[in-house]
Order: sequence, then C-alpha cells, then structure tokens
Amino acid sequence: MISKALVKEFQEVVGADGVFVDEADRAVYSYDAAVLEPVVPALVVRPTTAEALARVVRLCNENRLPLTVRGAGTNLSGGTIPNPHGVVVLTNGLNRILEINTEDLYAVVEPGVVTAKFAAAVEGQGLFYPPDPGSQAVSTLGGNVAENAGGLRGLKYGVTRDYVMGLEFFDANGDLVKTGARTVKCVTGYNLAALLVGSEGTLGVIHKIILKLIPAPQHRKSMMAVFDRVSGASETVAAVIAGRIVPATLEFLDNFTIRAVESYSQAGLPVDAAALLLIEVDGHPAQVEEEAAKVEAICREKGASSIRVAQTDQERNKVWEARRAALSALAKLKPTVVLEDATVPRSRIPDMVAAVEEIARKYQLTIGTFGHAGDGNLHPTILTDRRDQEEWHRVEQAIDEIFDRALAMGGTLSGEHGIGIAKTSFMERETSRATLDYARRIKRALDPHNILNPGKIIGDA
Amino acid sequence: MISKALVKEFQEVVGADGVFVDEADRAVYSYDAAVLEPVVPALVVRPTTAEALARVVRLCNENRLPLTVRGAGTNLSGGTIPNPHGVVVLTNGLNRILEINTEDLYAVVEPGVVTAKFAAAVEGQGLFYPPDPGSQAVSTLGGNVAENAGGLRGLKYGVTRDYVMGLEFFDANGDLVKTGARTVKCVTGYNLAALLVGSEGTLGVIHKIILKLIPAPQHRKSMMAVFDRVSGASETVAAVIAGRIVPATLEFLDNFTIRAVESYSQAGLPVDAAALLLIEVDGHPAQVEEEAAKVEAICREKGASSIRVAQTDQERNKVWEARRAALSALAKLKPTVVLEDATVPRSRIPDMVAAVEEIARKYQLTIGTFGHAGDGNLHPTILTDRRDQEEWHRVEQAIDEIFDRALAMGGTLSGEHGIGIAKTSFMERETSRATLDYARRIKRALDPHNILNPGKIIGDA
Repeated sequence: MISKALVKEFQEVVGADGVFVDEADRAVYSYDAAVLEPVVPALVVRPTTAEALARVVRLCNENRLPLTVRGAGTNLSGGTIPNPHGVVVLTNGLNRILEINTEDLYAVVEPGVVTAKFAAAVEGQGLFYPPDPGSQAVSTLGGNVAENAGGLRGLKYGVTRDYVMGLEFFDANGDLVKTGARTVKCVTGYNLAALLVGSEGTLGVIHKIILKLIPAPQHRKSMMAVFDRVSGASETVAAVIAGRIVPATLEFLDNFTIRAVESYSQAGLPVDAAALLLIEVDGHPAQVEEEAAKVEAICREKGASSIRVAQTDQERNKVWEARRAALSALAKLKPTVVLEDATVPRSRIPDMVAAVEEIARKYQLTIGTFGHAGDGNLHPTILTDRRDQEEWHRVEQAIDEIFDRALAMGGTLSGEHGIGIAKTSFMERETSRATLDYARRIKRALDPHNILNPGKIIGDA
Repeated sequence: MISKALVKEFQEVVGADGVFVDEADRAVYSYDAAVLEPVVPALVVRPTTAEALARVVRLCNENRLPLTVRGAGTNLSGGTIPNPHGVVVLTNGLNRILEINTEDLYAVVEPGVVTAKFAAAVEGQGLFYPPDPGSQAVSTLGGNVAENAGGLRGLKYGVTRDYVMGLEFFDANGDLVKTGARTVKCVTGYNLAALLVGSEGTLGVIHKIILKLIPAPQHRKSMMAVFDRVSGASETVAAVIAGRIVPATLEFLDNFTIRAVESYSQAGLPVDAAALLLIEVDGHPAQVEEEAAKVEAICREKGASSIRVAQTDQERNKVWEARRAALSALAKLKPTVVLEDATVPRSRIPDMVAAVEEIARKYQLTIGTFGHAGDGNLHPTILTDRRDQEEWHRVEQAIDEIFDRALAMGGTLSGEHGIGIAKTSFMERETSRATLDYARRIKRALDPHNILNPGKIIGDA
C-alpha cells in the first residue's frame, strides 16, 4: 500500500487526473502480451512533462517503490508486468514528435509516440523508419527501445537498436543522462544509449529518443510463393540469402498458420499449401526487378507450386495485413497461446522448422510456426490451455527443447521478444555465469535500491 | 616495478618469449598516435591463446596491475597510452580469422586481426566489411571495436558498432562473458557487446568478435569535384544529402590539405583548388549511374569548376590512396600535428568549415581541414610545434573553441577518435554531470580495482 500522503505527493507532481488509485483503474495495467500471471500495481501515474517524469522517478527512488514504465504493454515476455507494491508509469502523456529533420535524417521523439504513427509521419516527409514490430499499430517507440523491438524488416534493415542514435533518460535518482548524438558518428563516452536499448526499463527511464531515418526505397515488389512441402519453403529462404539477395522481408507461414490467418482475415491465402513465403524486395527499380526475378527462379527451383506477385498496393497491403494478423488469428483458436521466439542463423531455418515439427509430435502439441525466416527469427506458436496442467507440463518441456535446439544450432533464446520475467531462468544456458554476474553488477551499481523494473532480464538475485 | 617472481608468473602463462622486460622493448609501447606524453609500461606481454589472455587478466587483477590492451596503437586520443606501473597486453598473437560464414553473413575473429587483411579476406568471398578507418592497413579489429572506429564509409554504411553482432570478453576477474549472437536478432540479456564497443578497454578484455558482413555492392563510381570556393564544396555536401542520395563516401579536402597531399603523394590533385570533394556512389549499376549523374549536377550547380570521374580501378585507387595519405602528408609539415574530430549534423558542414577558418584566423594558426564531410565528421588539423609554448596555448584555445562551436551546432566532441585521455575534461560539456557519474558507477562496479585501462574516457575520479 502506498500512503495517502505519498499519493498526494504524486498528485502534486503529475496532477490529480494523472494518478490512478482505484483497483479497477490499476488492474488495466496488470499484464502484458505474455502468458503470465497478472499483477496489479499499487499505483499508476501518467506524467505529461519530462520534469514531472523525473520527479516521479525521484519519488519512487526516495520511497523505494518499484517503478515499471509502460508504453502500450504489447511486449511478450512480461517486461511490463509490474510489482504489487510498485508504480506503473504511463508514457502516453509523453507522445510528441519533437523534430523530423529531413536534412540530417534523424527524428527526436518522446517515448509515448505510437510506432505506426511515427512511421507514417516520417513517410510523409519522404523518409523511412524501418523497424516494424508486429504490434506497431499500438506499440510505442519508448517500448520499442526498451525491448529492442524487431519486426519483419530485420533482415535488410536491422532492428530498433540500429536506429537509436541517442537517448536522454533519467537515472534511478531522477538525474538526466545524455548519450549519443544527432550525428552519424559519436564516440563521446560509453555507448550508454546502446546499453539502454533492450534493457527493459531496468537501467533508466527514457524521456527523449533520437532516431535515425533513411531515404525511402524508390520501389518495391511483393510476392507470395506457395509450397507443397515445408522443406521447399525453408530451403528457399537459405538459398535466397546464399544468392546474395537481401529482401526487405522474407516471411514464413506453415499450413496451420495459413489456415488460422485465412479463417480470421479472408485474405485469399491458399489453405492447402504446406507453407507460404511472403517476400518483398525493395530499392532502385532496376535492382528490384532483377532481384524479384532471381527470387522467383529460386522459389521455382525449390518446388514452389505457384508464385503470385502483388500488382497493386492494395493487393500488397492485403497480404501483409494478413501476415500481421497471424498472432491474433492463432490466439483465437485456444485459450492460451505461447509465442516463442528462438532464433537461429538464417541457413539453419530448414533444420529449425524440422526441429519444431518433431518437437510438436514428440510432446503431442499443436504448434503453428510462422515468422521472420529471412533473419532466422521464427515464432513457433503453441496453442494450449494453461488450466490443463498435464498439457501445460508438456508445453514447458517443448519450450525447453526448442531453446536447446536453437542454441545447438548457434542461435539465441530470444530474437526480439526480450527476456522479461519469462526467460530469466534460461539466460545462463546461452551465455555464462560470469555474463549474468556482469549484468547484475551493472544493475546494482546503477540502481542500488532496485526500483527500476525489478526482476526483469537478470532476475532478482 | 613488477617483481621478478611476478614476471616469472607471466612467463609461465605466455611463455618466456611472450614477456618483454627490457626498457627498449617496453618503450615501443609507450605512445599512440595522439599528441601526448609517452609513458613506458612496467611490462609488456603477448598472449597467443584465449586461455593465456584470461590468465593474464587474472594475474593483473590479483596484483592490482593496470592493464592496457594494445592492437596497433594507431588510436588518436591516448587510449593505448599505458600506466607506468602497468602491463601492456599485445593482441598481435591473437590474430586468427576463425570463420567467415558466407551463408549467414558473419565472421568470427580474434582481436589482433588487421582490419585491411580481414576486409580483403571477406572481399575474396564476395562479401563486404565496410568500416574502413584511416589506419586500416595496420589497425586491428580489436582496436577498432574498443574505439568504435569510423572511417570514410560511415555515411552510408555506419561505423564499427554497426557491425559488431557479438563479443566474448574477459571481465576484470578473467571470467568469460558472452554477449550477442550469430543471428541478426538477439535480445538475450543486456546489450553488453554494444557497451563494450567504444569503451577503450576499460570494461573488459575482448578475445572473440562476431562481425556482420553484407553482400558486396555490384558497382561503384568515384569522382573528384574541384571547387574555386570552399562554400561551394560544403554546400554541395548538404545538397547531396538533402537530395536523398547517400554516397558510400563523400570526402572534403581544403586547399591546404590538397597541397600537402599532392606534394606527398603526387596523385595529380589540382593544387589551386579552394576545395575538393571526393565522392563515391555504389550499389546496383542503374542506381549508381543515376546517382552519379545527380551528384554531378549538384556539384555543377554549386559551382564546381571541373568534375573528374575515375575511369579505371587504378585511377580510382590512386585518388583514394591520396586521400588516405592526408594525415601523413600534413604530419610531415610541422613537428606537431593535432588532428581534431569534432562532428556536426551533416547540414551544418558549411557552417563548421567557416567556423574552423574563422578560428584559424583568430588564433593565427595553420589549420588544414579534411574529412568525412558526408557524415559531418571533419578533421580540422592544426600544424604546430608543441615546444613553442605560446603557440601551444593558442592551439589549446582553438581546440576549445572548435568544441564549443560543434556543440552549439548540435554536434559532438568526437566522431570517431575517442575520448581516451585527451578529451576526458571536455566530456561534461557535451553530456551532463549525471552522465559521467552513471558511466563511472558502471566502471567501478565492473572493475573495482580499476585495473582495466584506468583513466581513459571517464578520467580517474
């Protein structure tokens, strides 16, 4: 419980209408998109200025209150699940695009700006902000930075960290830390901006983000390749990369996912296909034509039964919207959906797809697989019901084995969903005891009272 | 002094021929490429295995010996100047390219691999490693990572940090930390690899680097544009970027630098030009032709008196080699050469060039300016004689003012040369007191005995 006097202090900082004390209000912020128990925070506050944000951090630190910053709560590993004694800090009142600089190709934003709105604003100026996490329609840039969000374009364009040029954030004391710059090159001091990216709110509270922008590609071409065998699709992925073609997106959907998506969104997907690849190449028109032709040839060589090239923007958008609906479509089928995120080097996609199929059979589970095959980032999606304890036990075993197989292939536990609280116990398997100790020493030094989103990534040890 | 018993321990770890105790041997490692007093280390060791490297770190930590890792010592801010009571650890015995993976587009290397040799090995496989610091012919990849080295291609291709996918390094205790992955996407734990990049050996000792590779551009075109007015050249830089063209390189040389380079390397540069731009565009052939034509048109519009397009690889290489000789050429003219590194947003290049000219007049100094204009990273080069105390005082004032002007334009103290010991006292001017405190808390937590390259970046406080 937070005392009335303290609530009053928060009200003085952010205004009475920026403090939520009623349980019904607080419960709204008790969960994120991961399959984890919700936790209702003790208080929710909504600052609308940087100064108020700093004072909120200071108040939390002085009163040893755990503080969890929340953008849209779309993250998939429990990173925004708060502490029952803690404060949730909403960023939706800090949602201004402060600058889009078309000469120097950067933008400055507050953390609460919605990703898709920002991307559209940038596009309106003839520029391009590539990171496009699945949740971009509602996710915030602050959340994207905190989680180092990925998306469909990682293969060619990288992920959020590749676009963060600088940050201003408040440390645990509420003091302002400035790192990075508006310039392409900057080596003034430790690269703290890069450390903050993906740190899930455990090392500081971001209040300003400098993002790199690039010129928009002149042209693009989207196609859908239909395969009767899963191996044909996964081998195509490896062959495209080996052919020195780097598509903007190269997405994989297995039959289970295709059927789920089609029944959800009626996009005209071929429901009998064993697997689909959705491929987009972009760049100079001549290059796009050449690459598209090469990709088509590789698809056919690997046994694609048909290839449809989108003829209009509308056709293109329909397919991509269907792909973006994959998680929602799968989520409708069963009470519990576990979206995994193990990632392997791109050439191992055929092995990983086969491994997931084998694991599904072994544990008698329904696993739909889709994802960003081009960058090795598949999302095996386990459909289950958490209330069924016996099945849930098999789900846990299957997840364990998915991790082991990915690591054995030189991969990683999490490509883009983060560690949060869902994967902390697996961290050492990929890294080392010393790696965890190293991270924990950083955390303790920067946040001695452990108020910044405690328990996330590195656990509570 | 390091005791004989301790020297013997180091000899047991790295072999008798891997430990250098004679002063003449040690003096070789007393300086780097910055204008700073040399400091002869107490001992120099040369491990040739990761295990020996870890044991060297452990021995240093146990005996509280400052440890400075040294690649080729080409850095420009004192980052490799050792402590008089400390140990210099050479990496030239850890110089294997462990893997070049053409399917998954990455390489794994040891820190002592020479940058240019690596770039050539990668090119031999049809791939491309873009970071090309001026010292690439001798610099090492470990040094590049520790300094976050830039180079000529920063504008289009980014700098070293954009290519570090993962690291293995030893912490101050000599324990192994693993961070990052062989996959494009990885969010397993804090982004420690990114923190280590540019940390100048103060947070760990790198023993393995995973580097991102990209497909080589199909085609490229180099040109030299000659200007009678400096403003014509600098305005061209801004106009090219504003025209949504991102050249692979966009280099600026003023008249003073042109004459110095020409007298040094006889590359056929126009010695009467007020300024030169060296521009290279690369990519798909059709795109290259279009962009080259656009760049040419912009140059003419901004008053270029002539534009020479390289017709052969030989012609191209001659010009770029001349450009790469700029520092050596300037260094021959006077006993002391101070190569500055202040960087501004690209559109401010005309203002920054004018500011440097004004500062040169004000302090009656000879300042040649050249550098990576395309990414705002100019290198104003002050030719002086440090023994002339009166002039040296003016040099210091000029540097101070260059920093102030760059910061006022939204720029940074250092684009690519690092802070080392040369710029520690300026750090707070760009960032904040809390930023320095934040960095120092990290350093203290990770290296409580302050043995890892002490005094660099964050000073001794």
